[in-house]
Amino acid sequence: MRYAITLCYDGSEFHGFQRQKDYISVQSETERALQTKLQRPIVLHASGRTDAGVHALAQVAHFDCDVEIDCDGFGYAINTLLPRSIAITDCRRVPDTFHARFDAKRKTYVYRIYASKIHSPLHCKYFHVCFYDLDVETMQRACAYFVGEHDFRSFMLSGAAVRSTVRTIYDLHIDVKDGGRQLDIVVTGNGFLHNMVRAIAGTLIDVGRGRFALEDVPQIIAACDRRRAGKTLEGCGLYLYGVEYDGMRFEAHADLSDPLHA
Amino acid sequence: MRYAITLCYDGSEFHGFQRQKDYISVQSETERALQTKLQRPIVLHASGRTDAGVHALAQVAHFDCDVEIDCDGFGYAINTLLPRSIAITDCRRVPDTFHARFDAKRKTYVYRIYASKIHSPLHCKYFHVCFYDLDVETMQRACAYFVGEHDFRSFMLSGAAVRSTVRTIYDLHIDVKDGGRQLDIVVTGNGFLHNMVRAIAGTLIDVGRGRFALEDVPQIIAACDRRRAGKTLEGCGLYLYGVEYDGMRFEAHADLSDPLHA
Repeated sequence: MRYAITLCYDGSEFHGFQRQKDYISVQSETERALQTKLQRPIVLHASGRTDAGVHALAQVAHFDCDVEIDCDGFGYAINTLLPRSIAITDCRRVPDTFHARFDAKRKTYVYRIYASKIHSPLHCKYFHVCFYDLDVETMQRACAYFVGEHDFRSFMLSGAAVRSTVRTIYDLHIDVKDGGRQLDIVVTGNGFLHNMVRAIAGTLIDVGRGRFALEDVPQIIAACDRRRAGKTLEGCGLYLYGVEYDGMRFEAHADLSDPLHA
Repeated sequence: MRYAITLCYDGSEFHGFQRQKDYISVQSETERALQTKLQRPIVLHASGRTDAGVHALAQVAHFDCDVEIDCDGFGYAINTLLPRSIAITDCRRVPDTFHARFDAKRKTYVYRIYASKIHSPLHCKYFHVCFYDLDVETMQRACAYFVGEHDFRSFMLSGAAVRSTVRTIYDLHIDVKDGGRQLDIVVTGNGFLHNMVRAIAGTLIDVGRGRFALEDVPQIIAACDRRRAGKTLEGCGLYLYGVEYDGMRFEAHADLSDPLHA
C-alpha cells in the first residue's frame, strides 16, 4: 500500500531534505520516526530535494507499507517521535502507481525578503534580509517576463546535470506585506532547476536596486548564461509551499497557512 | 565614559543572556565582539538577564570605555563581528552614573502564543504553540486583575531569592493578530520576578481554556502561592520589547519593530 505524507519543516535545523551520511536531514529524521512507529523499514520518495536551510510548508513524500495505516491522526502520532522542527500535517492513501516526484505537475515556492537597514537576528534564518532600497513596482513588472515556457539555464546552478533546462512558470508575483518591509516572491511552475527560484529572486533584487534595468530581464533569460543573471540568494528565504498532482493538491495545513507574517 | 547599547537577539541560539562557563551566551558573544573592536576588556551590565530561549527586541546594557566611541554606525561595525543571531541596534553615550539594571523604571515584555491544532515547526522556537481552544475575551478581562501594585509571589520561580516580591504592572493586554491565531500578551511593569511573565502567560492560558474561572484570578494573585497559578510557559515565546529610564527610552529599531507577524 502506498501513502503520501505532507511535511512541514524548519530548514534551518537540517542539511537539506535528502539523507546524507554524517549529517542530519529531514529525510533521515522522518524515516526514523516512521520506522519506529510502523516497525519496519520505510523509504521516503519526496517531490524533490530541498537544499540546506530551505523550509517547507508542504513537502510531499510517498512511501510503501505492507500494513494498513489509519491516516486520521497518523500525523499526531508520528509528530511526537519527530524533532520539533518537522511535522507531518497530512497522511493519505494514494494509488500504487503514484510517485511524489515524477507525477508532480505544479509546485509553488515562496522566496521571502525582508527590507531592513539593519541586520535582523529574528529574521535572518527565515528571510533574505536586504539592506538596499528596492523599487518594488519595477520588480513586479519584471516578474511578467519569467512567466511562460523558457529555457531557464541562466538561473540554474552551473554544472547541474539535467536532461532539459526548459521549464514553464505559470505564475510569478510579489506579495507586499508588513507595510512594504516584507516581499514574498511567489512562483508556481511545472518544475524548477537547481537553485532556479533563488537565482530568480536574486535577479529580481538586482532589478529592484537598479543593477539591472527592466528591459535587461528578457535578455538575461534569453542568454542562457548563468553569469548574466543575479546572485543565488541564500536557502533560508525559500519555502516549498505546495505540490499539485492530477486531481490532488497538497498544501499547508490550514492552521499553518502563513507561518511568518500575516 | 559610559555607553548604553540596545541589543536584538534570537534567544533560541543561546543559553540565556548571562555569561556562563562552557555555554554560549548573548553576553559572552557581545563582550567578545566589543573587545575585538575596541581592543580592551569590556564588561556589559544588562537591564536584566533573560533566560535560555528568551528573545529580545531591545535589551539594554551599559559598559565603560576609556576611548571615545563614534556612536553613529557603531552598531553596523560591531554587527559584522557578532553572530548573526545578535545585533546592536543603537549605541549612545550616557551619564557616568547611569546603570542599565538599577535605573530601569519600566520594562515591556511580549509573550507570544500561536493557537494551532497541529504542531508547527516554524513557530515552535518563537511562540508557545497552544493546542487548546482559547476564550480570548475572558483572557482579556483577566488581564485587568494583574494591573496595579501586587505581591506577585504566586508567579515567581520558587526558591528565587529577592528582597521584595511586590511589583507594579502598569499595563497588561492581549493583541490578537493573524485572524485570531496569534495572541501577543503585552505587559509593562516596573520590574518582574524570575519567570513572572511566563507564569502570568500560563495562568492566562488556563483562564482561556477554562481551567480557571475569571473570578479565580484575584484569588490566585492574593494567595501568594506558586502552586495556585498556571504553568510557567517556555522561554521561547517571550520577548524583551523595551526598557525605559528617566527621560530615556530604549526600544526596537524602527526596521525591526515587529519581527514576526505584522
